[in-house]
Amino acid sequence: MNKPMKMNASIRRLLVHHRSTVTRLFQRNVQHQSSTTQKSSTNISDSNPAYDFVRRHLGPNEQQTKEMLDLLGLKSLEELTERTVPASIRFQGTMHIPDALSEHRALKEAEEISNQNSVWRSYIGLGYNDCIIPTVIQRSLFENPGWYTQYTPYQAELSQGRLESLLNYQTAVSDLTGLPFANASLLDEGTAAAEALGMCIRHKKRTRVFLSDKIHPHVIEVVRTRAAGFGINIEVMPVTNMDFSSKDVAGVLFQYPDTDGNILEYTDLIAKARENQTMVICGSDLLALCLLKPPGEMGVDICYGNSQRLGVPLGFGGPHAAFFSCAEQYKRDMPGRIVGQSIDSHGAKAFRLALQTREQHIRQERATSNICTAQALLANMVAMYCLYHGKQGLRNIALKIHQLTADLAHSLRSFGYKIENDLYFDTLKITPKSAQIKEIQKRANKKQINLRYFQDGTIGVSLDETVNEDDILDLEWIFNTQNKKTESSQQSNSKLSFGNLARESNFLIHDVFNRYRSETKLMRYMKHLENKDISLVHSMIPLGSCTMKLNAAAELTPVSWAGFNKIHPFVPKEQWRGYERLLKDLEHYLCEITGYDKISFQPNSGAQGEYAGLRVIRAYHEHRGTPERNVCLIPISAHGTNFASAAMCGMKIEKILLDKQGGIDMKNVADLAGKHKETLAAGIVTYPSTSGVFEETIKEFCDIIHHNGGQVYLDGANMNAQVGLCRPGDYGSDVSHLNLHKTFCIPHGGGGPGMGPIGVKKHLSPFLPGHPLLDDLNNLKPFGTISSAPFGSTSILPISWMYIRMMGAGGLRRATQTAILNANYMLKRLESSYKVLFKGSSGFVAHEFIIDVGHFKQSANVEAVDIAKRLQDYGFHSPTVSWPVAGSLMIEPTESEDKDELDRFCDSLIEIRKEISDIEAGKYDRKNNPLKNAPHSQHIFLHEKWTLPYPLQKAVFPIKFVSPNYKFWPSCGRVNDVYGDKNLKCRLE
Amino acid sequence: MNKPMKMNASIRRLLVHHRSTVTRLFQRNVQHQSSTTQKSSTNISDSNPAYDFVRRHLGPNEQQTKEMLDLLGLKSLEELTERTVPASIRFQGTMHIPDALSEHRALKEAEEISNQNSVWRSYIGLGYNDCIIPTVIQRSLFENPGWYTQYTPYQAELSQGRLESLLNYQTAVSDLTGLPFANASLLDEGTAAAEALGMCIRHKKRTRVFLSDKIHPHVIEVVRTRAAGFGINIEVMPVTNMDFSSKDVAGVLFQYPDTDGNILEYTDLIAKARENQTMVICGSDLLALCLLKPPGEMGVDICYGNSQRLGVPLGFGGPHAAFFSCAEQYKRDMPGRIVGQSIDSHGAKAFRLALQTREQHIRQERATSNICTAQALLANMVAMYCLYHGKQGLRNIALKIHQLTADLAHSLRSFGYKIENDLYFDTLKITPKSAQIKEIQKRANKKQINLRYFQDGTIGVSLDETVNEDDILDLEWIFNTQNKKTESSQQSNSKLSFGNLARESNFLIHDVFNRYRSETKLMRYMKHLENKDISLVHSMIPLGSCTMKLNAAAELTPVSWAGFNKIHPFVPKEQWRGYERLLKDLEHYLCEITGYDKISFQPNSGAQGEYAGLRVIRAYHEHRGTPERNVCLIPISAHGTNFASAAMCGMKIEKILLDKQGGIDMKNVADLAGKHKETLAAGIVTYPSTSGVFEETIKEFCDIIHHNGGQVYLDGANMNAQVGLCRPGDYGSDVSHLNLHKTFCIPHGGGGPGMGPIGVKKHLSPFLPGHPLLDDLNNLKPFGTISSAPFGSTSILPISWMYIRMMGAGGLRRATQTAILNANYMLKRLESSYKVLFKGSSGFVAHEFIIDVGHFKQSANVEAVDIAKRLQDYGFHSPTVSWPVAGSLMIEPTESEDKDELDRFCDSLIEIRKEISDIEAGKYDRKNNPLKNAPHSQHIFLHEKWTLPYPLQKAVFPIKFVSPNYKFWPSCGRVNDVYGDKNLKCRLE
Repeated sequence: MNKPMKMNASIRRLLVHHRSTVTRLFQRNVQHQSSTTQKSSTNISDSNPAYDFVRRHLGPNEQQTKEMLDLLGLKSLEELTERTVPASIRFQGTMHIPDALSEHRALKEAEEISNQNSVWRSYIGLGYNDCIIPTVIQRSLFENPGWYTQYTPYQAELSQGRLESLLNYQTAVSDLTGLPFANASLLDEGTAAAEALGMCIRHKKRTRVFLSDKIHPHVIEVVRTRAAGFGINIEVMPVTNMDFSSKDVAGVLFQYPDTDGNILEYTDLIAKARENQTMVICGSDLLALCLLKPPGEMGVDICYGNSQRLGVPLGFGGPHAAFFSCAEQYKRDMPGRIVGQSIDSHGAKAFRLALQTREQHIRQERATSNICTAQALLANMVAMYCLYHGKQGLRNIALKIHQLTADLAHSLRSFGYKIENDLYFDTLKITPKSAQIKEIQKRANKKQINLRYFQDGTIGVSLDETVNEDDILDLEWIFNTQNKKTESSQQSNSKLSFGNLARESNFLIHDVFNRYRSETKLMRYMKHLENKDISLVHSMIPLGSCTMKLNAAAELTPVSWAGFNKIHPFVPKEQWRGYERLLKDLEHYLCEITGYDKISFQPNSGAQGEYAGLRVIRAYHEHRGTPERNVCLIPISAHGTNFASAAMCGMKIEKILLDKQGGIDMKNVADLAGKHKETLAAGIVTYPSTSGVFEETIKEFCDIIHHNGGQVYLDGANMNAQVGLCRPGDYGSDVSHLNLHKTFCIPHGGGGPGMGPIGVKKHLSPFLPGHPLLDDLNNLKPFGTISSAPFGSTSILPISWMYIRMMGAGGLRRATQTAILNANYMLKRLESSYKVLFKGSSGFVAHEFIIDVGHFKQSANVEAVDIAKRLQDYGFHSPTVSWPVAGSLMIEPTESEDKDELDRFCDSLIEIRKEISDIEAGKYDRKNNPLKNAPHSQHIFLHEKWTLPYPLQKAVFPIKFVSPNYKFWPSCGRVNDVYGDKNLKCRLE
Repeated sequence: MNKPMKMNASIRRLLVHHRSTVTRLFQRNVQHQSSTTQKSSTNISDSNPAYDFVRRHLGPNEQQTKEMLDLLGLKSLEELTERTVPASIRFQGTMHIPDALSEHRALKEAEEISNQNSVWRSYIGLGYNDCIIPTVIQRSLFENPGWYTQYTPYQAELSQGRLESLLNYQTAVSDLTGLPFANASLLDEGTAAAEALGMCIRHKKRTRVFLSDKIHPHVIEVVRTRAAGFGINIEVMPVTNMDFSSKDVAGVLFQYPDTDGNILEYTDLIAKARENQTMVICGSDLLALCLLKPPGEMGVDICYGNSQRLGVPLGFGGPHAAFFSCAEQYKRDMPGRIVGQSIDSHGAKAFRLALQTREQHIRQERATSNICTAQALLANMVAMYCLYHGKQGLRNIALKIHQLTADLAHSLRSFGYKIENDLYFDTLKITPKSAQIKEIQKRANKKQINLRYFQDGTIGVSLDETVNEDDILDLEWIFNTQNKKTESSQQSNSKLSFGNLARESNFLIHDVFNRYRSETKLMRYMKHLENKDISLVHSMIPLGSCTMKLNAAAELTPVSWAGFNKIHPFVPKEQWRGYERLLKDLEHYLCEITGYDKISFQPNSGAQGEYAGLRVIRAYHEHRGTPERNVCLIPISAHGTNFASAAMCGMKIEKILLDKQGGIDMKNVADLAGKHKETLAAGIVTYPSTSGVFEETIKEFCDIIHHNGGQVYLDGANMNAQVGLCRPGDYGSDVSHLNLHKTFCIPHGGGGPGMGPIGVKKHLSPFLPGHPLLDDLNNLKPFGTISSAPFGSTSILPISWMYIRMMGAGGLRRATQTAILNANYMLKRLESSYKVLFKGSSGFVAHEFIIDVGHFKQSANVEAVDIAKRLQDYGFHSPTVSWPVAGSLMIEPTESEDKDELDRFCDSLIEIRKEISDIEAGKYDRKNNPLKNAPHSQHIFLHEKWTLPYPLQKAVFPIKFVSPNYKFWPSCGRVNDVYGDKNLKCRLE
């Protein structure tokens, strides 16, 4: 039901929120169109063994589904589909996806695939080194849904556990790199370097950037690609050739130890750069820094790298947490998520995400980066690894690796091999006689050992934590040297080896790095932190646009298998036949689901996907000889990353206004497209819209963009409402990213990992990202490289593969219908208590909806955030707050929640509405009431007397089902953001 | 420091507790003997890579160890050893155990071993059928330390989660078997049948028992062995031959479906048995009972069987939960642990272990069984499996199996095979022509399928949940029948197949079996229950004699591998070469540790080990021609199971009195041994004693027993104080059981599984238990069979193997020393607040100690149980309460707890002592105070006003470290045992 007058008010707020103005509002009348094609719904009852898993994935069973349909006055899920999805775009075909398998059979098939990968020892290096994951961390964190189903810690009071752990991570990075500020991880090493590049360009307002030619080649390519987006050509050269005296160089990037394993003295270079106001950026290796003088002590401004070798599986390239740290003066400009310490309402220490206001969801195209997803789960693994080993443990690991490397070097040298490295940590570059090369490679293959084979015939060997004396013997056999242990191996030590580059300064000195060194202690610490945090193991997390659905155990299981997670990303193709099959399968499935023709798995987050997709569009226009096409139309209600990504591609952004219903103003689209007819590059649209509506005009939108020479980028964040019902590739979109961590069951991991592959229509496919270490690029014109690894965070792709394999086409479609049903059911239950913003023309929403709470500010001094915090007292994580409309909550239940849980959540919101009424009626004080004081942590018991003007029961057991038996306690009072941002503290002291 | 007068009082209580009287007390003076051999302690510092795992297993690091030694005035762990372990028995040799491996290397070695096992499809049946473990249960329960490190739920308020789950299990068993009472699982099917036998003998006071010859052969053997212990010969015969009219038959056991797969109508048999007051006991299969009329509806008194196929791995024979249910009139005589519903102090529903007073720790030799360990973890898995599938799901699984069996039967029959079964569920007995037999076996081996090959040439095929159409095709190929699907397969249904034996009655109708059917719901339910319970993931569980040490993740990991857990127990030896190696390794290690010559792994609990050991002794005496030797001396302070086990062996028990120090009265030993010189069979002794002291007289004890013709049984429950320091086999013991779930890291699983292998000296080894399905018994004279599987709960043995492999001899010894250090440190910290009962002559205790709290009854109206409950408010599980001394707490910290945790626990007990003082001083009311009201659950907040006469902070945050951030909430008020036992309710209604 439309309420035009009130709609206007909410639209106004929306626009105010986006700091834009409405010039005109345009009312459209859209006819409800009903399809004549009726598909029968998938039968998920117990008696249908074909859907063994489907009924586990879905929350509501047949009975509950019927009850919810009844309330909505609908006969079937098909009728719901007809009422929500415009007939013009409804998918009438069949997705050619194999029949659903039970989890037992799907796991068997996944195992066969994983067995097609070959697990060799990989001494390739290049930023990826095998390591030993302490089993206690593997079991109690990596394989524990209490950790991996957490959401990004925006609701700090329910997230103190992982925030504390991420602060440990930041402290470890800060300590090891010798720089005071670190963030809570970036997507990969290449992205981190590219973000550093962005920082120095912004900071120095210069456009020249020097890169050492001894940076890992894939990192160079990612930086080169990113720079090109800014219109900059990086200059790659030996560090000895660098000359900053022209004072126009924004930054210099080098690597220490470098990609060949050399440890060079950069003191002079750094001095010269600083003299000329050039920012100094150093790629490094945290394990090496246990023995080497940290970059921060050499005057480096930014340090970055991959933290994978500190307890994270190789995973064929990811997910891994890239680290990033910087000097004091750059702290507020640092990209990515940063955890900071602040205080709560009781004045006690509390953690939260710091400097949120600089992020894209606030600043849109003026954000300093499009980075959104972090690698939280992996950063937490690294943090726990550091806690478990402590300083001495890490040093011992580093020393052992170095010692073995020295042994090997000695042995090789004594047999006449030339070792190119003077100083090295774990990596040797060996020059064999050319006659030897083939034989060495043959013997290495025989031992199933991968080495780095340079094109010039030199060979790289990079040792890791798993290497022991037997492995060295194998290497000696490969190089055909004698098997005897060398005498000299006893003599070297770090001091001796590294000269004045040996580390003198202490690290990991905080007590936390000494407290949890027995397994019992670490296990308890991990459990203690886990139990502070709400995750999907507790209750629904109804985040609009974030799709917190079930991450089934069977989906996660293959990620732990060696066949998937012990593969180096740069092994020869013969060793990743299993991944090849998996990627091929998944590409096929996703093409069937989306209607696209080709998928690139390289983008490892949604925002990376956006960026890649827009770069593809730019490359397409350039290839067609119309490089001037650089205008991008984006609705003002779009995800903040849309703007940021477009800006990073050098696009000129024009914002599309909204109509009364919160939909895209089609007149405005036509006007803007027409206006920029000659320079239009793309139109971005989220579908269903960020307002949770299947807009009838989507086809028209695509047509207008195409008609004016542009390409359509459809943001796939809301794909969960489309799978099986409509396909972007069919109704006019040219490219989309797919958030596999939303629609396709990769867990959120407390803020990452994610995966954001992009699908494109055929004409765009030649321009998809390439990779310097993949060679089959015949006839392709990749725009560049955007991730360190060719297929992004490859090792979590089995999760999405398993999901699709266990759901089948019918199950996937049923899931979408159920997600839409759940949203409409909640809407129905809530609309007598709250105003619902934006519905489709037939009165239904898609998979999510927005309730308006902005008017409570005046009536009761209650803001959206107060409701969000109060929900914690009811045991719930808040929906999305004030996005895309200020003063609202956006609710997305997903298909995995059952009616009971939806009812509990609705009951809570309804009860909170009554509490607001009590404030409005004067029963509660406007400043001292259950909402303003929320959340109520156990700290309220620490007062000698009960001090609140309402009973304890009201505070902490506000509704029947929140009983002593079912109480989740927020672990602190409301966290003070302003205090924390003012007093920025991002590491343990 | 001895306090003789007070000691007398405590000894008096001890004796009263044991319902015995002291005739004389005897004071010994023992000189402190110091060894001249000084072993250097194992260096566990970070810099010693040889002890990678050791330092993870141990709580205290080098620094804390030093601090604790300082407090005790000791220079080294070696000095502590000298002061505690009598020089006369101190082990001076070397344990020949391979060097410690890191967990990474140990896991690699374990993987190699597991790969030596061959995972075939096993259609052997015999009570073991493969199944599909829902991945969510595998991950969130089976592989979750929050579940498997729980202790037996004696402290009900901290155990509501698993108690609720076990009640679900009991309800499922009760429903499926059609009998009103079920227990919370027994060790295995054979033991369950043997327990049923015991029940009917006790109940009917008759000594004849009939067994159907169609019961599984291993079950018959276990029953036969048990009966022999009672002096009874069972009569095995076809059911058609049974004649009860002599009215002297106590019970009849048969199986339905029987071992051949036949489903017979037992109505007449049951009627005749009941006419003649013979108890009717029916072995069955829970999955079959989804389709078949339940035994309870036929007039059966007891039903038993293996619940493994409901979601528990095959595990080469265990651990599995055997189910056991009975009719109303036998409920108070039912063996094993029973969960019952009662009320808590707030009058709310609460669960706890029911009918505790009938157990061995109370009734000793008058207990009705020696059963102590249950299979709680496995029963919980079964319960969750039932919740996950519900009635319809289970029926579907059963129907599918039955349908495939019918298909196979049809196909085989149509090719001329004779199928012996008229009615069957999942098992066929096939008679091939004799010429075919070899070919069939050959083809089966080619397909890697195990069948049951009867000696008469018939072949058994027993299908399971994992079987699908492809497997049937393979079976048809094996039997060389056509591959086409038969038409008739569509026609059969359970009604048709089973006639009037088809199940008509409903089951799993309680809401709980319909509530958790999506993965999200079940995952949340498991987490909800997990978080109600204290386990080792929260805080130390300092249970005397129960040794709650770290169960390391790396130790548990191999248990999840198919190579260990997907092996049927009766596969040919060629398929279990890995287990063979593991058993051989472990036997070698345990022999090195104990000084014994041979190990039997058959006993699957400590009490089973005791029983087996005593039966070995009896067999030995019988073999020597002195069957009259049947007197067994047992100290009054012994574990209750000692008495019960001896009684079950038909031994005559004489109780040994204690001296003033709580030690064995050696004069009394000499007197009793002399008195029974001609009939002495054994002397049982626990070492170090149950009082936690290394008695100096242990050698003397052994000498006296031997001198009088007896054998020494040393109870290995306290082996954790001996490993590496002294060896029972060296100083005179002949046989011991080893609780692998205490000393060797198998987790307690919330009350099982356990493993109780026995070690014996060479002269006893021929008499160790045999097994009907193991054939290499040359030159052996086994006393019989005590477990269904040849090596008990084999699949958890990798845990102990991993532990020993990662610790090495040095690590094991250091662990023992640390356990002793921890105990002595706590004693030192506590002795100014509490009286410590029993120390060794040098003033030190072993690995545990007893504090006296009995006198508070008079001074403050405080009992031991009040302190136990109050500890919950401090976040701790209580130590052992009132055992072996009434009015005491027995504290065992183990080596895995660090000094911080020990201090927290000591601080809590000291603070509680102050609270007691406040009662003594009249500050608190004697009936209404923090101890009497403990534990304080969140229910205290439900009153309108604060009603307790002390502040909320005192109630729930009684000490600094119990803060809002670190509060564990007991989930109910104190549970009322008496009410529950009076109103016995052991299933959901």
